[in-house]
Amino acid sequence: MNRYQQYAHEITALIQAKTLRAGDKLPSVRQASAQRGISPATVFAAYYLLEARGLISARPRSGYYVNASATPAEPATARPTRQSTPVAVSELVFEVLASTRLPDVVPLGSAFPSPALFSLDKLARGLTPAMRSLAPQQLVEDLTAGNERLRRHIGLRYGIKGATVDTAEIVVTSGAMEALNLCLQAVTQPGDVVALESPTFYSALQALERLKLRAVEVATHPRDGVDLDSLAQVLARHPVKACWFMPNFQNPLGSLMPAARKQALVELLGARQIPLIEDDVYGELYFGTSRPLPAKAYDRQGWVLHCSSFSKCLAPGYRVGWAAAGRFAPQVQRLKIMTSLSTAIPSQLAIADYLDRGGFERHLRQLRLVLAAQQALALRLIAKHFPKGSRVTHPEGGYFLWLELPRQVDALQLQRLALMQHISLAPGHLFSADARFQNFVRLNYGYPDDARFAAAVQTVGELACGLAASGS
Amino acid sequence: MNRYQQYAHEITALIQAKTLRAGDKLPSVRQASAQRGISPATVFAAYYLLEARGLISARPRSGYYVNASATPAEPATARPTRQSTPVAVSELVFEVLASTRLPDVVPLGSAFPSPALFSLDKLARGLTPAMRSLAPQQLVEDLTAGNERLRRHIGLRYGIKGATVDTAEIVVTSGAMEALNLCLQAVTQPGDVVALESPTFYSALQALERLKLRAVEVATHPRDGVDLDSLAQVLARHPVKACWFMPNFQNPLGSLMPAARKQALVELLGARQIPLIEDDVYGELYFGTSRPLPAKAYDRQGWVLHCSSFSKCLAPGYRVGWAAAGRFAPQVQRLKIMTSLSTAIPSQLAIADYLDRGGFERHLRQLRLVLAAQQALALRLIAKHFPKGSRVTHPEGGYFLWLELPRQVDALQLQRLALMQHISLAPGHLFSADARFQNFVRLNYGYPDDARFAAAVQTVGELACGLAASGS
Repeated sequence: MNRYQQYAHEITALIQAKTLRAGDKLPSVRQASAQRGISPATVFAAYYLLEARGLISARPRSGYYVNASATPAEPATARPTRQSTPVAVSELVFEVLASTRLPDVVPLGSAFPSPALFSLDKLARGLTPAMRSLAPQQLVEDLTAGNERLRRHIGLRYGIKGATVDTAEIVVTSGAMEALNLCLQAVTQPGDVVALESPTFYSALQALERLKLRAVEVATHPRDGVDLDSLAQVLARHPVKACWFMPNFQNPLGSLMPAARKQALVELLGARQIPLIEDDVYGELYFGTSRPLPAKAYDRQGWVLHCSSFSKCLAPGYRVGWAAAGRFAPQVQRLKIMTSLSTAIPSQLAIADYLDRGGFERHLRQLRLVLAAQQALALRLIAKHFPKGSRVTHPEGGYFLWLELPRQVDALQLQRLALMQHISLAPGHLFSADARFQNFVRLNYGYPDDARFAAAVQTVGELACGLAASGS
Repeated sequence: MNRYQQYAHEITALIQAKTLRAGDKLPSVRQASAQRGISPATVFAAYYLLEARGLISARPRSGYYVNASATPAEPATARPTRQSTPVAVSELVFEVLASTRLPDVVPLGSAFPSPALFSLDKLARGLTPAMRSLAPQQLVEDLTAGNERLRRHIGLRYGIKGATVDTAEIVVTSGAMEALNLCLQAVTQPGDVVALESPTFYSALQALERLKLRAVEVATHPRDGVDLDSLAQVLARHPVKACWFMPNFQNPLGSLMPAARKQALVELLGARQIPLIEDDVYGELYFGTSRPLPAKAYDRQGWVLHCSSFSKCLAPGYRVGWAAAGRFAPQVQRLKIMTSLSTAIPSQLAIADYLDRGGFERHLRQLRLVLAAQQALALRLIAKHFPKGSRVTHPEGGYFLWLELPRQVDALQLQRLALMQHISLAPGHLFSADARFQNFVRLNYGYPDDARFAAAVQTVGELACGLAASGS
């Protein structure tokens, strides 16, 4: 973290705590530089970043001022039903996903960030040399758990984040999706109950559907994540065999569990010997001062199965993810062999070589800045164009916003109208086992290179206004 | 198929039919050339090939003679138990597989051919250019069913083999293992009964174990494959929900179902609307005149789910396979998305580019010759060094032999003794749900580049002789 990011983060905290309020003037660059003992260039950089994030504005010949909190309030915490339910969302999910891949559609409904954000050429250049340097015998030996060098890199990155993970625990998979599915299968039998967040990522619902598991949903705060009281009630009421949660930048909420809450979560589940499958694919895409720890960092007894990948932060399409599955690592490794034998070696080697060469952290810093600025733009557009009474999350990372529209707006209808204007959306229906969240949408702002983005958000806002007016 | 291969094949058929018998003299090169209207060089090449396969020998200043059938007889067709059984072979399989990956072990127990047999450098060279030519947007669009160009190539290759497969039916997977698993899941529910060959590939047993299915085994002839009478009886007795068979070069038998039998199989199952999962990963490794058709070629109603890969014939470690799943293609495609989203794009593109450039057929011809010659060597060594009463298959393709040892030889004991001599083996115990085949081993001859091969086969033979003598 650079000094200017640190300074920008401190000011952000003051704004969030309402210590600095709308209209307040920030210290001049010269004042701030003298007060803090940092260079004027550092202050400039920090103010520039805050302006990009929509938190402050420059007034000519006057200085920088805190913006009015122009964006709508956050949605309330959802209160899921108490029953556990079998899952059958796949039909709708596949219909909607197909629409996000149509040509010439602005992909606000996509689950992926723009491929243009990644150093694809640098990665591609590494492929041939990496494979040519491989002893042919490695093609057999690297099967199963994955390339040793890559696994060491992954293990080292846990160390950077403050977690300790033994390389032997790590299984390289075909993306995080495979890792999550293998972990889920390792700790459940058909018919078992699994606890999910509410709302939850539809792929978690699909995984439960595929393995014939039952879902029970846990109230989840749009900023602070899983509600531990709600979780304790669920555990008291249901024979929960596993939890599948996203403590960092939850999909779709963007919520980030505070460190103390993560620790309490791990202790709560560990005491009951309930495995926690931790989906941490967005953890690197934080806008704050440092990488949020995974829940895994608090795990002393191996009950956390931590899953992540390089797909959202480095190498889309390479399909390299992993599981660090704690006490379940041997089962996950065996399931990997039984399911798909091993992960593609060219992809594994290209990423291992990229990590050898360095530059990943620089790439990540750039990626985070771009996404943070784009989130600010999206929030400004939503404040301007969406119906009165709309609410939206303010995530501290990732590339999703979760929008609550007036009750009379049906998100599926909105999605279909938007698609006629060549804009995809992910309607709230996809994000629970019982198709609640019918007036919610998930909006992807991870395509800053798409010149149509602002106009598309405006169009969706106008369509929503129309539905809100006609339905009221 | 070259003219010399054609001629060699005709002579092989005459030897197999006992029209040409041990000790018979072949026509001289000049005679054969005149009789057949082919060049002396072609005759020489054919005789050279037959000599490499151990069928004929040159006697100085006399000519070529048919060899005595020095290799042991084939094993008899196994008679599996009539019950269906839950499956639990994994522990033993993993223990044995781990031993095949030990350093400095002669991998007679391996499931893979030697990586040295493949054009790894040519494939590697294609990786970087292929990925650099990709529009970034393709990284999102190529997800799910797979790269369009690769799927067209796969579809065209079905055409070459005489089958008609719509590109839309093809789903690219992380190797054939994933394809087979997805197909199995698409057509079964936990508790269902699935018919397998006897003996069968242990990965099929593991797949059933993972999905909590029951296995019923069908008698399988060591040369002609699945016994259709036995299959009809099994179908009459059990509510079979699917069959998982390998009509071409079955693992471990190497059996090849004759075309008419394949057709009858497809008709038998189609009439009962029972899906056939066809594992065809060795189909390209034939030693005869032309590629054996898959059962899929006779399928008119979409009940055959054909699975194959490039791992055993072109690109080990790239993890690119596919399923052409007939009427179940939509389900398989959805399961693929739910399980691992998509197959690694660098691997897919490198193979598509390789197929664009041509040279695959030339590579395959070379590969088949090398494997055929190595099989002949293995059979000669077995005839010489293995205990009296041993039997062995004579497959017309692939790289496995299935050896039946005298009844008193325990294959697990043999495997452990061999491992102390740094030789791995796959004991027969792995190849059925009830650990029959206790005096059988599968022997991999797909490492012609391993100078230790002949000595290792001799060592195993001597160990087996010791066990046969002490146990009798």
